[in-house]
Amino acid sequence: MQVRTILRILGLLVALFSVTMLPPAVLAYFYQDGGGWAFLSAFIVSLLIGFFLWYPNRLFKRDLKTREGFVIVVLFWVVLGTVGAIPFWMPDEHTLSFTDSMFESFSGLTTTGATILVGIDELPHAYRYYRQQLQWLGGMGIIVLAVAILPLLGIGGMQLYRAEIPGPVKDAKMTPRIADTAKQLWYIYLGLTIACAAAYWFAGMTPFNAIGHAFSTVAIGGFSTHDASMGYYDNPAIPMIGVLFLLIAAVNFSLHFAAFPRMHRKRVDGQTHYDWSIGSVQTYFRDPEFRALIIIQFSLMVIVVSTLLFHQQFTNTLDNIVHGIFQAVSISSTAGFTTADYTVWPVFLPMILIFASFIGGSAGSTGGGLKVVRVLLLYRQGVREMNRLIHPKGVFTVKYGKRPLPDRVVQAVWGFFAAYALLFVILMLLFIATGLDDYSAFGATAATLNNLGPGLGVVGANFTEVSMAGKWIAMLAMVFGRLEIFTLLVLFSPAFWKQ
Amino acid sequence: MQVRTILRILGLLVALFSVTMLPPAVLAYFYQDGGGWAFLSAFIVSLLIGFFLWYPNRLFKRDLKTREGFVIVVLFWVVLGTVGAIPFWMPDEHTLSFTDSMFESFSGLTTTGATILVGIDELPHAYRYYRQQLQWLGGMGIIVLAVAILPLLGIGGMQLYRAEIPGPVKDAKMTPRIADTAKQLWYIYLGLTIACAAAYWFAGMTPFNAIGHAFSTVAIGGFSTHDASMGYYDNPAIPMIGVLFLLIAAVNFSLHFAAFPRMHRKRVDGQTHYDWSIGSVQTYFRDPEFRALIIIQFSLMVIVVSTLLFHQQFTNTLDNIVHGIFQAVSISSTAGFTTADYTVWPVFLPMILIFASFIGGSAGSTGGGLKVVRVLLLYRQGVREMNRLIHPKGVFTVKYGKRPLPDRVVQAVWGFFAAYALLFVILMLLFIATGLDDYSAFGATAATLNNLGPGLGVVGANFTEVSMAGKWIAMLAMVFGRLEIFTLLVLFSPAFWKQ
Ligand SMILES: [K+]
Ligand SMILES: [K+]
Repeated sequence: MQVRTILRILGLLVALFSVTMLPPAVLAYFYQDGGGWAFLSAFIVSLLIGFFLWYPNRLFKRDLKTREGFVIVVLFWVVLGTVGAIPFWMPDEHTLSFTDSMFESFSGLTTTGATILVGIDELPHAYRYYRQQLQWLGGMGIIVLAVAILPLLGIGGMQLYRAEIPGPVKDAKMTPRIADTAKQLWYIYLGLTIACAAAYWFAGMTPFNAIGHAFSTVAIGGFSTHDASMGYYDNPAIPMIGVLFLLIAAVNFSLHFAAFPRMHRKRVDGQTHYDWSIGSVQTYFRDPEFRALIIIQFSLMVIVVSTLLFHQQFTNTLDNIVHGIFQAVSISSTAGFTTADYTVWPVFLPMILIFASFIGGSAGSTGGGLKVVRVLLLYRQGVREMNRLIHPKGVFTVKYGKRPLPDRVVQAVWGFFAAYALLFVILMLLFIATGLDDYSAFGATAATLNNLGPGLGVVGANFTEVSMAGKWIAMLAMVFGRLEIFTLLVLFSPAFWKQ
Repeated sequence: MQVRTILRILGLLVALFSVTMLPPAVLAYFYQDGGGWAFLSAFIVSLLIGFFLWYPNRLFKRDLKTREGFVIVVLFWVVLGTVGAIPFWMPDEHTLSFTDSMFESFSGLTTTGATILVGIDELPHAYRYYRQQLQWLGGMGIIVLAVAILPLLGIGGMQLYRAEIPGPVKDAKMTPRIADTAKQLWYIYLGLTIACAAAYWFAGMTPFNAIGHAFSTVAIGGFSTHDASMGYYDNPAIPMIGVLFLLIAAVNFSLHFAAFPRMHRKRVDGQTHYDWSIGSVQTYFRDPEFRALIIIQFSLMVIVVSTLLFHQQFTNTLDNIVHGIFQAVSISSTAGFTTADYTVWPVFLPMILIFASFIGGSAGSTGGGLKVVRVLLLYRQGVREMNRLIHPKGVFTVKYGKRPLPDRVVQAVWGFFAAYALLFVILMLLFIATGLDDYSAFGATAATLNNLGPGLGVVGANFTEVSMAGKWIAMLAMVFGRLEIFTLLVLFSPAFWKQ
């Protein structure tokens, strides 16, 4: 284990992360409503932490192996989650307990969006902004992780997205290619955020709220600058903008990457030519996961809206449609924004929305859950089993796109599903042990493991009623969910630590 | 599809089944407390049904193919479930509605053990006996199905238990071997029942109750001749006898079959010798599923008893131990007998017991749930995934006993798991749509799909509070569970009906 190389990288990350404490400090100065001292001192503390991690190890620059990849990915989230908690913990009139600070920071950075805060509207702008920014940074982190790193580690079938698919997984080195990919993804992510913020602004949000909600929308995070979440706004254009950008953010960013305008340099007859290429709508529709995402989202909208209309949940038809579409997308994509208290909606609506959050977003998106591609592969396996029973002599392969799936990928997806189910049961029992009732424990597990945010029962709106032990279990579940279970799980295996 | 051959077989089955209406009729005559007319007329009606199914088709005796195997297995349960409802439906002072009659009969025959009856202690002996007998017959049916038929159909990885494991599944004919195997299993089942009844009797039950409870114990059914179930008896010997025989009944009957004393005829030097062989304890402990069953049951007992002791649920230490062990085995084996209202036990006990019922009994036992062997295989796959992530260059095979598992079996188990999970979600949403609250709907789905019996919330004790639509969904779930999902599911596939 290249401990010192890992520490060097972490030091750099923390130092870089400390800079993100400055915009809230500037906001505090601008609005003069408090929080400035907390963020300035948090900046200094985290910069020092980063420095003292980096400085003694600055000369260690060895290549990292796959095993170290797991460690660094887990540490990335755990260390940044901890450093991110510092501003909340700083002693001023808005100080939180250590547990609550950690909860809010981890919930932000993992894009879960569960909160222990009430009275968010009355908080200083610095805090209100910082929470949104945490989600945005976490969303960026997860895209780089999912698109560039997990395929190399081969987590849960994600080697599906590697260039060199079949064959045994190589003990791949962490290549500089990750940095290139990350930079391009960053442009796309930034572009989407700007577009989303502009749209919210035009629809009537203040610039402060527009940027804040754009941050948590493209991150599928669910934090809001208001206690009432998106329900704060009367204008139906705002939830519809949210739906549009949530759907875009729930798509695999590899597809956006492929469809992104790009310049190619060609040399023809000794002369250099520059060509621009851009992907088309086909780039998206050729992808089986994208098609499945659209079908799932559309079906869910129809079910939710028609049930609301049938039960006349809102007196106004438009309200049934807007709230229905918004909650369908917000919960199933695992954003967790609310415009209405969907947990009291008629018959099976709360439960079907929570179940939909288990599917979640696409792989390589900022959404949580099992991911659409895995559910699609599980479904196709189930259909194959049926066909095999009906035609025992037939030969059936499971395809993804036009290629038959390698067994290795299929098995990894199954292993992922089993681990997810087992972990769900264990976490739910742990939540019950901390004093939650069974129903709320189910909601809390789904809310955290799926990185959804709001649950059911006492955790329907926030986690203030959860005990200290329960909050720590929630944080554990968030990290498990965000790191696709196995990234964290392998660290608990004795075999991992044997040389 | 050999429709007329299928009808001939069904006719014979129904005629044979009609004979089982006679013992309750005899009991009614003996006790003179009613029900005689209901059972006599039910006997005649079902005999006539059987006759009119058989007579026109008596000459059709073609061999059946795999596809027809699915149809006949499903019809077996549906038709006998319907015919079994006739006595409840007969108009006398104890008559039930059509739905309730069907519910009680399906719940009995599928060994689910959920009931819509209250005041069972006051019912005529004929009814009290008949319900127990339904479970016993259902238990016998499921063992023959699981040991002799499902391996041929290849449902959910059960080709694991076929002699000729690897290679494609043959479009096997339903061989006369099934009849031989069935006969031997019948002796074992009968022997266990007699031993169990004798033990209950010695421990203080009346012969009537001893036989009744022995029926529903070896069938892991859970029906009782008392409203209070096993809680009717103060004597701790009775639940302990129940635990012993439930554990025996939760073992794969193929193992009992292998360990059963047997006579072999050998010819040595022109002379005929008779040898007796008998299996040993090793026969059991060599089986990976048996070892897993023992580990699961023992761990659960320890968790439940120690939690009860810690929380002083009962004032008496012995009570904590006896009730703890009994409920651990009764719920996890999917029997569903109760000596105490475990749904109000402290912290996570109700939920962990319900989760344990998802594992259920061994394949080829009378228990429900996913079956121990499948959970074991899922677990080993998960471990292999971990190992592959840690050692990407390693080659890991999943073994069962000493043999590596064929991919075909592993994939079938995964397909089974995915179908089970999906079906669970759909059934739970349907239960909610019929008016159950989310929590009770979860309990009702687990209670029926796992063939457990009692659930949580309003279905914690019985199904009397469930709407008519909910009862039909419950019946559907029971049959799905008992027929290992796919046997019934394939019939819903258009591909199945295409020639
Ligand atoms: K979220
Ligand atoms: K049962």
